[in-house]
This record gives sequence, C-alpha cells and structure tokens, in this order.
Amino acid sequence: MAKSHVSVIGSGQCGPNSEGRALYAAAVELGGLLARNGYVVVCGGLGGVMEGACKGAREAGGRTIGILPSSDRTTANAWVEIPIATGLGPMRNMLVVTNGDVIVAVGGGFGTLSEVALARKTGKPVVAIGDMGAIDGVQRARDPEHALSIIKSILERK
Amino acid sequence: MAKSHVSVIGSGQCGPNSEGRALYAAAVELGGLLARNGYVVVCGGLGGVMEGACKGAREAGGRTIGILPSSDRTTANAWVEIPIATGLGPMRNMLVVTNGDVIVAVGGGFGTLSEVALARKTGKPVVAIGDMGAIDGVQRARDPEHALSIIKSILERK
Amino acid sequence: MAKSHVSVIGSGQCGPNSEGRALYAAAVELGGLLARNGYVVVCGGLGGVMEGACKGAREAGGRTIGILPSSDRTTANAWVEIPIATGLGPMRNMLVVTNGDVIVAVGGGFGTLSEVALARKTGKPVVAIGDMGAIDGVQRARDPEHALSIIKSILERK
Amino acid sequence: MAKSHVSVIGSGQCGPNSEGRALYAAAVELGGLLARNGYVVVCGGLGGVMEGACKGAREAGGRTIGILPSSDRTTANAWVEIPIATGLGPMRNMLVVTNGDVIVAVGGGFGTLSEVALARKTGKPVVAIGDMGAIDGVQRARDPEHALSIIKSILERK
Repeated sequence: MAKSHVSVIGSGQCGPNSEGRALYAAAVELGGLLARNGYVVVCGGLGGVMEGACKGAREAGGRTIGILPSSDRTTANAWVEIPIATGLGPMRNMLVVTNGDVIVAVGGGFGTLSEVALARKTGKPVVAIGDMGAIDGVQRARDPEHALSIIKSILERK
Repeated sequence: MAKSHVSVIGSGQCGPNSEGRALYAAAVELGGLLARNGYVVVCGGLGGVMEGACKGAREAGGRTIGILPSSDRTTANAWVEIPIATGLGPMRNMLVVTNGDVIVAVGGGFGTLSEVALARKTGKPVVAIGDMGAIDGVQRARDPEHALSIIKSILERK
Repeated sequence: MAKSHVSVIGSGQCGPNSEGRALYAAAVELGGLLARNGYVVVCGGLGGVMEGACKGAREAGGRTIGILPSSDRTTANAWVEIPIATGLGPMRNMLVVTNGDVIVAVGGGFGTLSEVALARKTGKPVVAIGDMGAIDGVQRARDPEHALSIIKSILERK
Repeated sequence: MAKSHVSVIGSGQCGPNSEGRALYAAAVELGGLLARNGYVVVCGGLGGVMEGACKGAREAGGRTIGILPSSDRTTANAWVEIPIATGLGPMRNMLVVTNGDVIVAVGGGFGTLSEVALARKTGKPVVAIGDMGAIDGVQRARDPEHALSIIKSILERK
C-alpha cells in the first residue's frame, strides 16, 4: 500500500539559533515521528519549519519532498530528498496542500494561514501545533507527539 | 492615469433570495460605490458576493473583471464584463489577489480567508466588511460606505 | 451575444524600427481588422507582436486584454486596455491560449510554438501568418486580411 | 552530489500491446538506461511513454517522479515512485520541463511539442528519439543508447 503523505507547513523564518528555536525544535521532532511511523513528509522545501521537519525526517531515515516556489531546484534546503521546482511563487502553497493527506501547521504567519484555509476549503484535515487562532475544523495539538496521535487516528478512519 | 483595481472577495453562496441576502446586498452596494468612484472591480467571476459586486458596478456603469477557476469563460456570472478563464481551480484565488490594488472581503469562508492571507503575505492592503476574525493588518469596515472611505485613503497614500 | 475573443501570439522582440518591422506592421494591421470586426484582442501583454496587435485594435476603438507573466500589472504595453497580472512566468502562455476562441500566430519563436502546440492539444483552432513550420491543424494565412477571413469562417461554424 | 534529473516526455497513448508498442519499448529501454546511469526519471506520471520510462527505471532500481495534471495523486501509473499532484491540467507540462536538467522526447504529439518548445524557450537541452520535426536546438537520437550518450555529454559539460 502506498505511504500516506503528511504536509508540514509553518514559519519559514525560525531556525536552530533564532528566537523561533522552539518552533524549529518542534518541527524536527515532528519530522522524526512522522518518518518513524512510515509517513512521507511533504513541505515547501525552504527554511524554518520546512527545514526542521525535513531534517528530523531524514535523520530518522524517512522520505522528504520539497515543493519549491522558484523554478530552481537547488533552492531546496539540505534535508529535502526530492526537490520539485515550480516557478509558481506563492501559488505553490496550493501544491503543498494538494500533496498531503493531512496538513500539520507548526506556528506560522500569513503563508501558513493561506495554506490552512486552502486545506479546509478543499476538505483536507488540518492539525495545528501552537497558536493558529480558532479556525473551523482545525484540530489543535499540544505538541508533536499529540499531533502524531491525531494524524494516525485521521488516517485510520480514511 | 490608469484606474485603480479593487478586488472584491467573499462568499460564493449568498444570493438575493438566500439567507445571505444581507451580504449580497452589501456586495451590490459596494460594487456601485466602487464604480461611481472610478475603480475597476476585480473578482472571482462566480456567484454570491462576486455576482453582487459585479451587478452593482455594472448597473453604475463601471468595469468588472472576473478571474474564473475553470478554463471555460462562459462560467462567469452575467455581470462580468471581462471574463478571464484560468483552469487553475482554487489557485486562481491568488490571481484575484494579485490583480487588486486593495482587497475588500465581504463575509466569506475558507476561500476568502485564503485570499486574505495571501494578500497580507504579499503586502496588499485588506479591508473587511463583516466578520473575518482578527487578522493582523486587516482594516475593519462597518458597511460599504465605510469600506469605500478606507479604500480611498489607502489609495491616496500610495 | 458575447463578443468572440481572438488571441494574438508571436515574437515579443519585433518593433516599429527593428528588423522585425514587417511582423510588427502585420500585427498592427491584424489588430485593427479584428477590432473593426467586433472581436476582442487577447495577448500576452508585452512587446513586439503583442504590442502591435493591441495598438492596431485600440486605434480602431477595440478592446485589448493583456495576460502578463509577471505579477505587476504595470508591465503591460501602453495599448493594453485590461492588464491581467499572473505571476505565472512562461506558464501564462496557457492562459493566453485558454482565453481565445481562435489563436492567430504572427511569426514567433519557441514561446509561440509552445502556445500553438497547447492550442492544438486543447482543440483550439490556430491560424498562422508567416513561417510556422508545418503543424497539423494550423491554417496558413498569407496576410492579416486572409487571416481575418479564416477566423470569420471558423467562428461562424461554431 | 545531487543526481541529475532527466525528464522523459512523449505520447500518453502507446502501450505494450498497442500500435505504439515500439515507442513504449523505447521508453522502457530508455528508463532502464537512465536508472543504471544514476539519473532520476521525471515525467508527467500518466500512461504511454511516461509509464514505459517509469517501468524501465523502476525495474532497474531507479527513482521515478510523476508530475500529474490532476489534484489526485492516485492517478499516477503504477511505476511512479513519487507522485506529485498539481491540479494544473495541461499547465503541468511546464513543471515537467522545469524539473529536468535535460529533456528527452520519445515520439509524441502536441503535448510533447509544447513541452519541447517550452524547454527550448527556457534554454533547456532537448534530445529527441524518433520523429519530432526540425526544431532548432533539438538533438536527434537514433535510439535510447544514442540518447543516453548525448545526455551524458550534455550533463558533463555543465
């Protein structure tokens, strides 16, 4: 059976040494949990949460797909195994959503919010770690472990 | 000088005889105000708020552009003067945002929220009539007249 | 009845004073003929053939739509009445094709060839003025007048 | 060092038992040669040449990426290892081109021609096996072995 794809979205700014390092650490932990449970990690391929999730997943031996805004595949972060160049700019957000069976948001700003809204519009389940505001149909998770258990129960129901 | 383009977004479901008729009426009023003040109305070209805004603008002699999700230009509502077919599905929302100098939301669900978030991500000013939740940088308007005065002051500052 | 839309494609490089001035002149003549016969001219909104066709159409009082590769509407040539910004880069070629009931190629290189091929793939009629190579289903026209008569007979059959 | 990506394009109609079985066989052979030489195979993810190239590559232990027109990842052929759903319809052709360092055409109709033209417009090298017509900058190969040797010499020069 084909593996489920989980799209991880969130702030592109946080990093291991920045103010957002708690978000980055959560993304790394989440990526590792997803990989160890057999999920493919899909993301926007750039920095911050996208990088953290890829790093965690790759270090755990998992697969990572990065769907990039530019048409240059070398713009992907170092932990993207399979870079996909689009040249679509911010419209590539829709492709990140389209390619996930579940969407997980880790923090994030307007870009993340647009992805969450697109996911909900197209009926995709969304799980949010951290502060996303109250959006109908978005399930809140306390931490990556909690997010994983919600994702598992969503995908088992499918 | 080229006319400013104002993108009107919002629920595709409301109509003159539906529960959402107050929203529809607000969209008609807004479209008329925009047209009489020399603005071009841009929208997603389908029903509900999109239709209302186009109807109001056309009845006032204004120009209306509808950027459609399908690749069939005849799917536009009857008040769209210039239909643009895209075949982009929900990704056409980004084009509606891209083609407005200001974005005005009239009610709306997830599709509208994704457009507002995309607008904010790309630095476009957003005005919301009705209940949009608190989103950074979105200016709230009580009614179409109030929205018009905010739009005017935004465009004069440019 | 809604007006038919005719997409004019071709070299973006030629101009009134360049080596390609015969192509530019043909585009101006074609734009004028289309406008005087009630057709809306759709194009890619930039220079060369696109500019010539818009100039001819506008000087004859017609409507011109320019579907631009960038997300900045001010990149349109001066004769575009209705600029549509896309941010899609070369993918906007598909939208130029999608928005024409007939496609007319005036000279042109690889970009034009990709548009002709996309048009044929989606079943759109294509008329070519000048040297396009032999492509199945592309009708050859000697000059703008001849192209107009072919376009008319195609649209009457619809 | 990251592996080179080779995009294989061509007729979506041929199959092991159809009239086009020589094309299908060529695609299978090409896919195998690419995989054994360490290249990632990128394609449009559907049938015909796309399926053949994926089958050959996967049977040789290689990696295959399928960039699909629909927004449903399960529409990929059985030999696509990494399906990418786009919802872009025929515009996804551009992404197939964008994601190859070299493009190889195996037969093919208008869709293939549009991809070749887009590749040439964006400066990508194109190799054609079989009858493509004379297009500037397209290198002709007699068979898959010949195509491989041309691809190798192109990528070594980079």
